[in-house]
Amino acid sequence: MPSPSSTQPTAQIGVTGLAVMGSNLARNFARHGHTVAVHNRSSAKTKALIEEHGHEGSFVPAETAAEFVAALQRPRRLVIMVKAGAPTDAVIEEFAPLLEEGDVIIDGGNAHFDDTRRREKALRERGLHFVGTGISGGEEGALNGPSIMPGGSSESYKSLGPLLESISAKVDGTPCCTHIGPDGAGHFVKMVHNGIEYADMQLIAESYDLLRRALGLTPGEIAEVFRTWNGGRLESYLIEITAEVLAHTDAATGKPFVDVVQDQAEQKGTGRWTVQTALDLGVPVSGIAEAVFARSLSGHADVRDASQGLPGPAAKQLTGKAAERFADEVEQALYASKIVAYAQGIHQIEAGSQEYGWDIDPGAVARIWRGGCIIRARFLNRITEAYGKDNKPVTLLADDYFAQALGEAQDAWRRVVSTSVELGVPAPGFSAALAYYDALRSERLPAALVQGQRDFFGAHTYRRTDREGSFHTLWGQDRSEREA
Amino acid sequence: MPSPSSTQPTAQIGVTGLAVMGSNLARNFARHGHTVAVHNRSSAKTKALIEEHGHEGSFVPAETAAEFVAALQRPRRLVIMVKAGAPTDAVIEEFAPLLEEGDVIIDGGNAHFDDTRRREKALRERGLHFVGTGISGGEEGALNGPSIMPGGSSESYKSLGPLLESISAKVDGTPCCTHIGPDGAGHFVKMVHNGIEYADMQLIAESYDLLRRALGLTPGEIAEVFRTWNGGRLESYLIEITAEVLAHTDAATGKPFVDVVQDQAEQKGTGRWTVQTALDLGVPVSGIAEAVFARSLSGHADVRDASQGLPGPAAKQLTGKAAERFADEVEQALYASKIVAYAQGIHQIEAGSQEYGWDIDPGAVARIWRGGCIIRARFLNRITEAYGKDNKPVTLLADDYFAQALGEAQDAWRRVVSTSVELGVPAPGFSAALAYYDALRSERLPAALVQGQRDFFGAHTYRRTDREGSFHTLWGQDRSEREA
Repeated sequence: MPSPSSTQPTAQIGVTGLAVMGSNLARNFARHGHTVAVHNRSSAKTKALIEEHGHEGSFVPAETAAEFVAALQRPRRLVIMVKAGAPTDAVIEEFAPLLEEGDVIIDGGNAHFDDTRRREKALRERGLHFVGTGISGGEEGALNGPSIMPGGSSESYKSLGPLLESISAKVDGTPCCTHIGPDGAGHFVKMVHNGIEYADMQLIAESYDLLRRALGLTPGEIAEVFRTWNGGRLESYLIEITAEVLAHTDAATGKPFVDVVQDQAEQKGTGRWTVQTALDLGVPVSGIAEAVFARSLSGHADVRDASQGLPGPAAKQLTGKAAERFADEVEQALYASKIVAYAQGIHQIEAGSQEYGWDIDPGAVARIWRGGCIIRARFLNRITEAYGKDNKPVTLLADDYFAQALGEAQDAWRRVVSTSVELGVPAPGFSAALAYYDALRSERLPAALVQGQRDFFGAHTYRRTDREGSFHTLWGQDRSEREA
Repeated sequence: MPSPSSTQPTAQIGVTGLAVMGSNLARNFARHGHTVAVHNRSSAKTKALIEEHGHEGSFVPAETAAEFVAALQRPRRLVIMVKAGAPTDAVIEEFAPLLEEGDVIIDGGNAHFDDTRRREKALRERGLHFVGTGISGGEEGALNGPSIMPGGSSESYKSLGPLLESISAKVDGTPCCTHIGPDGAGHFVKMVHNGIEYADMQLIAESYDLLRRALGLTPGEIAEVFRTWNGGRLESYLIEITAEVLAHTDAATGKPFVDVVQDQAEQKGTGRWTVQTALDLGVPVSGIAEAVFARSLSGHADVRDASQGLPGPAAKQLTGKAAERFADEVEQALYASKIVAYAQGIHQIEAGSQEYGWDIDPGAVARIWRGGCIIRARFLNRITEAYGKDNKPVTLLADDYFAQALGEAQDAWRRVVSTSVELGVPAPGFSAALAYYDALRSERLPAALVQGQRDFFGAHTYRRTDREGSFHTLWGQDRSEREA
């Protein structure tokens, strides 16, 4: 029987950390009919939230950690929305002693999955569930429906999943939220999501740069090209906002907005983590790596200044037939390179899943990326379909639909990369994607020569194509072969 | 007065860990007139060394750690040649308690520079010097003269340097050994050396693959091409051994050796560390990254199998004039791409030096790489010259000599990359190097668009080209601009 006391817990969920992301997430829960306990280290933000948005639903403001915990129905579900790193650990340590067995702490920040694994283990040993969850879609997504990638135990998903699914984006009625897998799986998948986002943005940036420099189009004209593309298979949030950004005119100068922005791209770390983790897992993610490097290169103003005046090619622009067909070819190159970026990211997710025993379903991941998140795109349906088949593709590239799309695009893709090279317009993302495609297609790779070199200078041995075993050639002697 | 006791220390240096590298290093010291104490966990190896090579110089075999330490003159100089990681820590812990203030422990393995920094700090606090040193040149180099990259205190180099210099390779009478900088500097530079080695090997592998697939040359014919190149500006150990490997015929089958070797390249980790560290430092090392990825890609037999049959271009080989000039163009592309790989590696060394306060001189590093190590090459003289000038180049690319070389090579370089793309022969290293060159040359980069996208979806702000400050456009509202 519920007691009539005024401290009777009424909240289905709580959010602590009420900066914009946390505040919007709390409002999203409240708007979906959940009673939400809200708490912040300084109570000013809590008060502001209630004053401005209290009418949107049922909030329980809490001044202290104890009040916050007391407001939560059991099992308590407590979402932490603070900075990744030490602040997250501090908040966990503040609340964990106040919780009871079976309660669930949710970290909705951009934590490194290694930290999430560590925290999940430590809290599990104390009888608590810990759910590290990716939340993508920025401030607007948090309020109106993000893509949500929760890790953690299946048991925690039973009580938490319905709440998260209710506030997530929906595509064709399907929530953009699913249980990704144990411990760090959710934050791992969010990390790779961001890595793919880097690659996607870089490929779009190269497309813009090529259209501008090879054809002499204005940013406004290129915005129109992107709008057209957004009506086709490239339809996606990033293509849509690219058109908006390119069409925007700077009020102060009357110039295209993109021409008054300093061309030094910043980054917050998840792209870098993706590549570093891929290197540990032995997965080639060259498209993502080139995107991360392109950003860091852009920021080295000193090196760029010193390199001005290095010789470039004589030809500067396309003409005639080549110019006429170029925009369409760039669309094809962009689509093909995007497929490669996703193939590399999914390969990394599968390798991580294998390494950590997460049993992640790539098709389900693509399904929940269709809405809410930054990389939402029409073509994710195709990825979900590819991994929904009985015979899952070993690589996305080899799935029938994608293999055909790549086959149709490849001539144009090659011409676009050649054009970039001939005109001296850097297209590291397109080039890396095409080289990856061609390397995987190759029956033989010159890696055999590399193995020969390694055996020559370091006696590292090699394997043979015609029989089992490891072998070493006595290079410094009579060049006979020994089984190692 | 020296005591007449039989335990009077006589050894200038000691080596513990007598696998091939340690054993060869000990012999190298002995051959140069130093008395060398030798020790191994199991004394069988110590005995074998004395039996087989005792006549080469003055060895003091030690059965126990105590005997080993007692054999060393003060300050004791004790080289550890065991596996990186836990075994190194174990050996340090075994010997440190037996040493006295001012003694020097040297780690000659391939340790991660973070570990070296940790160990140096811990031992410094115990009054001991710790020198993490890179040693390159493999087994043969260890015996006959390696390139040596010692970190640690200046004081430790005073007593240790002359010994190391005496056994190092010499080029024009100059030892390939210099004090790199404090704590982890030596292992850091060795790591980047290996990263450059990966890039160098990948570029050579791509050259071979292109000559073979675009021209239809046999491995034997390509060996001749490499031999010719080795007589010019590309003269280097790696080009030399490539010719040897390509010219070698497999005795068992009568086929070219390179055709019976499995085309899956292996790696031991330093290339991966280089890229991971570069990402932390924000330095673009795309050429090194593509080399690491090319190796890991080659090893994914399942993904490669699944990708066989993906469509490629119609054209398979060059003909006519394009074929005639192609080998020369590949030489130019290789030279230009190699310059980029070194520029990226040196950028990383300078960034690491800055981050950790090491004050590393890139010219001195290039000087000690001229002999003994795997990447030894004639053109390193040019790098030493570039960094020996009063105005050090901000990037190697901008040094007069290299800028001119790149300018002369760029047309051919572009044709080689275009050819690889048109024929479907993967050349990720060449492509990444050229894209890096063209990106640095570019007056404006599409990074401005990326900043616009980031501001649109995440309110990440941007800077303007025309005034100071951070700005945000209210994209979801009236698109006016706010100072952040």
